[in-house]
Amino acid sequence: MTNTQLTLVQIDNYGPWTVTPEPRREMDLQTMQSRLFADLANFVGARDGYVFFTRFDNMVAVTNGLTLEDHALLQESIGNRYPVTVSLGIGADAVPAGALERATERLQRMGSAQDGDRRQVLEGVPISPEERTDDDVSIAHFDVNDATGKYTDQLNEFDSFIRIEQGYASLMRYMREAHDALSFFVGGDNIIAVCPSLSSEEYRGAIDHVEEAVGVELKVGVGRGATAHDAGMAAKHALEACRHDGTAVEFGTRAEQAEAESD
Amino acid sequence: MTNTQLTLVQIDNYGPWTVTPEPRREMDLQTMQSRLFADLANFVGARDGYVFFTRFDNMVAVTNGLTLEDHALLQESIGNRYPVTVSLGIGADAVPAGALERATERLQRMGSAQDGDRRQVLEGVPISPEERTDDDVSIAHFDVNDATGKYTDQLNEFDSFIRIEQGYASLMRYMREAHDALSFFVGGDNIIAVCPSLSSEEYRGAIDHVEEAVGVELKVGVGRGATAHDAGMAAKHALEACRHDGTAVEFGTRAEQAEAESD
Amino acid sequence: MTNTQLTLVQIDNYGPWTVTPEPRREMDLQTMQSRLFADLANFVGARDGYVFFTRFDNMVAVTNGLTLEDHALLQESIGNRYPVTVSLGIGADAVPAGALERATERLQRMGSAQDGDRRQVLEGVPISPEERTDDDVSIAHFDVNDATGKYTDQLNEFDSFIRIEQGYASLMRYMREAHDALSFFVGGDNIIAVCPSLSSEEYRGAIDHVEEAVGVELKVGVGRGATAHDAGMAAKHALEACRHDGTAVEFGTRAEQAEAESD
Amino acid sequence: MTNTQLTLVQIDNYGPWTVTPEPRREMDLQTMQSRLFADLANFVGARDGYVFFTRFDNMVAVTNGLTLEDHALLQESIGNRYPVTVSLGIGADAVPAGALERATERLQRMGSAQDGDRRQVLEGVPISPEERTDDDVSIAHFDVNDATGKYTDQLNEFDSFIRIEQGYASLMRYMREAHDALSFFVGGDNIIAVCPSLSSEEYRGAIDHVEEAVGVELKVGVGRGATAHDAGMAAKHALEACRHDGTAVEFGTRAEQAEAESD
Repeated sequence: MTNTQLTLVQIDNYGPWTVTPEPRREMDLQTMQSRLFADLANFVGARDGYVFFTRFDNMVAVTNGLTLEDHALLQESIGNRYPVTVSLGIGADAVPAGALERATERLQRMGSAQDGDRRQVLEGVPISPEERTDDDVSIAHFDVNDATGKYTDQLNEFDSFIRIEQGYASLMRYMREAHDALSFFVGGDNIIAVCPSLSSEEYRGAIDHVEEAVGVELKVGVGRGATAHDAGMAAKHALEACRHDGTAVEFGTRAEQAEAESD
Repeated sequence: MTNTQLTLVQIDNYGPWTVTPEPRREMDLQTMQSRLFADLANFVGARDGYVFFTRFDNMVAVTNGLTLEDHALLQESIGNRYPVTVSLGIGADAVPAGALERATERLQRMGSAQDGDRRQVLEGVPISPEERTDDDVSIAHFDVNDATGKYTDQLNEFDSFIRIEQGYASLMRYMREAHDALSFFVGGDNIIAVCPSLSSEEYRGAIDHVEEAVGVELKVGVGRGATAHDAGMAAKHALEACRHDGTAVEFGTRAEQAEAESD
Repeated sequence: MTNTQLTLVQIDNYGPWTVTPEPRREMDLQTMQSRLFADLANFVGARDGYVFFTRFDNMVAVTNGLTLEDHALLQESIGNRYPVTVSLGIGADAVPAGALERATERLQRMGSAQDGDRRQVLEGVPISPEERTDDDVSIAHFDVNDATGKYTDQLNEFDSFIRIEQGYASLMRYMREAHDALSFFVGGDNIIAVCPSLSSEEYRGAIDHVEEAVGVELKVGVGRGATAHDAGMAAKHALEACRHDGTAVEFGTRAEQAEAESD
Repeated sequence: MTNTQLTLVQIDNYGPWTVTPEPRREMDLQTMQSRLFADLANFVGARDGYVFFTRFDNMVAVTNGLTLEDHALLQESIGNRYPVTVSLGIGADAVPAGALERATERLQRMGSAQDGDRRQVLEGVPISPEERTDDDVSIAHFDVNDATGKYTDQLNEFDSFIRIEQGYASLMRYMREAHDALSFFVGGDNIIAVCPSLSSEEYRGAIDHVEEAVGVELKVGVGRGATAHDAGMAAKHALEACRHDGTAVEFGTRAEQAEAESD
């Protein structure tokens, strides 16, 4: 059974800020919010977590292994370096959607995302070190079969993007509804899903669903670990195995991963 | 009639780089690619263009007003500061999808996106200064009605995101198929579309389509200008008018925008 | 005769901000201020100017070619993306120290650097396009002879740094007092000086002074151009000629530089 | 007695890279190297260390509390996101200059800083957790008395900078020669010194030396801690006490600091 710790990162009162006193230059907003995400990715990633940009004003992080002090430090450091502040809600659950439900509720209970007085909230409690196990996080790394050959090198970029986007919209909803898993587009033709324990058949079911619904062919590597990074690296190696062997679903093992890293 | 100049920014041979010699840490990739996008947004934005992250390894920019020298400088500067290089294809057309078609073809003709020898291509010719007009770019800025009240403050963040994402997936496809317009999610509940000349009824048709298809209610401000920034700012002010008056479609005028900026 | 346009960039009320309400984490300050400098370098550099970090809370830029609109855009964009704002004073003069004198006075006249109410000042007028010439800027690029062999690979890093630093402290004062030139350490063993028209003997005099005063041996390439970048690139090529020929002072010509770039 | 752990961060073969195949744009180099420093400050700072930009191609970090794994992760992450790589040498000693001597030797033994084949060296061993104490690091935070009133608001910026710079050049040499302490300019009118145990009289001696030598009046707050951040925060609070009481040397205590942080 997984035990996923998720953190909701919410920019405080961001919408109103973007239009006060007048609408701000869109590219300044894009620059600021993508750098804020980059800083989160750098901070969380260095502690073996993952963070996804989601809507940029609300971002979702897998934070198994990050303490409350880590969260407080991140919040303080952002506040010292950006024109905006962030609130953080932490939740853990056997099922990813449940963990995010808890994390979100903790922020919602403290006020609206657009409440000018609700700033730098830090709520929720990380999993205690004794409760953590080597199997807490399950990551599935999907990509599109031959996206470069079929789309990027053939279609105009927007039409390539439509294919990828329709595949993502279909997968994210299916994985949420069928399995309470959370799937995030991470660029290129890659989708990373934070999952509960799922069988090979269940992954095959997801791939079949997307192909039938929107005609996009996926494959997936799945990994398990104490942290998002450990699980994600096993998933990446498993996906390389799919590429090599032409298979659709592969599960990585820590043994394989360790071997690869010791090469 | 619009005359949109689009630039396709493609990271050279990025997919293979991310797994050579072994898969790289995902958060390093996320940090690097979101900072690269931020730098593009900063550079293009300072010249009154817009750039969208799209798939991150392929990004689309509205570059009316940017010269070939600007493009060359951007390409050189990225090459001096990142572990990857970028190729740039420029295209212009009365219709946004046509402009991107040309931009993309110019890169495709030089080799595959995953061809290790195809690096730092710069192809295509910007619109000459004499041909430029004050109406070349049309930008539509959509957002979701009361997204904070209905979604962010009510649902868990992923379920909010699913609503926004389904709205985006529906709108992007509709606008492409019905109008050859290119729509990009830019964070929060905001979608920016690069459009040809469209009527108020055509925008209302798009909003109705999305509401019927996926139940997400949008409104839109539309602006026109010599550059993406000019058009986009008029669109933002028009969207503020929607918010103020409870309307679904508003067109901004340069006069209104100038007045707002002189406040 | 040179006609240098300099801009003083001053973070508004920075000192008090760093200790309010309590002293902020030093590494957050370092991160923020070095990224702010990087953004200035990127913006000014893309317009063929140079900027030097100086004291970080006060930075000096060579802005020949940058308009008042460029300055206003830079100021707005920083204000949209950082927790601090900047004031900008512009001055031009035949002599670099005179240009900075004017730029500084324009800010000082508007209030103290630590006046909480003095924010985002923009004062001064760039050189008009008609007055600009191809010889307005003179840049001298100094480095230390065999710094790697004599210092970096031999001494501990701080003792290497002391040598470089004493060389810099000596040169900066000499060039200011003897020639009203402004010299900036730019990393490694490199010093870039913004100069009036100086003869080969005058540069040799500066090198001799530093060697006698602190025992550090320098060489210098000098370039001239319409912008800092043009002058600086000619200086860099001249410095390469020093390296190649074992000479102490070389003047670059635009012809040589153009040849090098067309290779 | 202190037990300072220092890390020398050296960009591999940087000098040659900056001029290959032709000299690169100076502002691209400035942007890249200041962002690299910012990333180091962010990474090391989040682990309660300090890093100083020094010469930018060689940077010095106080890394008490950082493990070998932390160093390896930093090195890997830089390599994944920059066009250059870094080598790291770690040393510890009762005296800061001794620690840097060891750190530097470990890199020098592996080859020249400009050896194209010497890349991503990681040498040296951090202090073991059992040996660490709450008093390992001593930080002295100097600033200039009334620098804004006497310099910034009165002189042109370069002449202000000359004063600060001469003060720094004098102090850095004195502290190195008299006490084997390492002093770094950190912007504004601030100098941070990594020190062995020194008495109030010894600090007063340094201040007197600088005033006599170059006429610049300093004051200093001194702090002690298990990490650079702990020691540095105590030093900052002590410096605030100097400002408040008009004293020249103050020592911070952890008790005072804890009280301040609990406010």
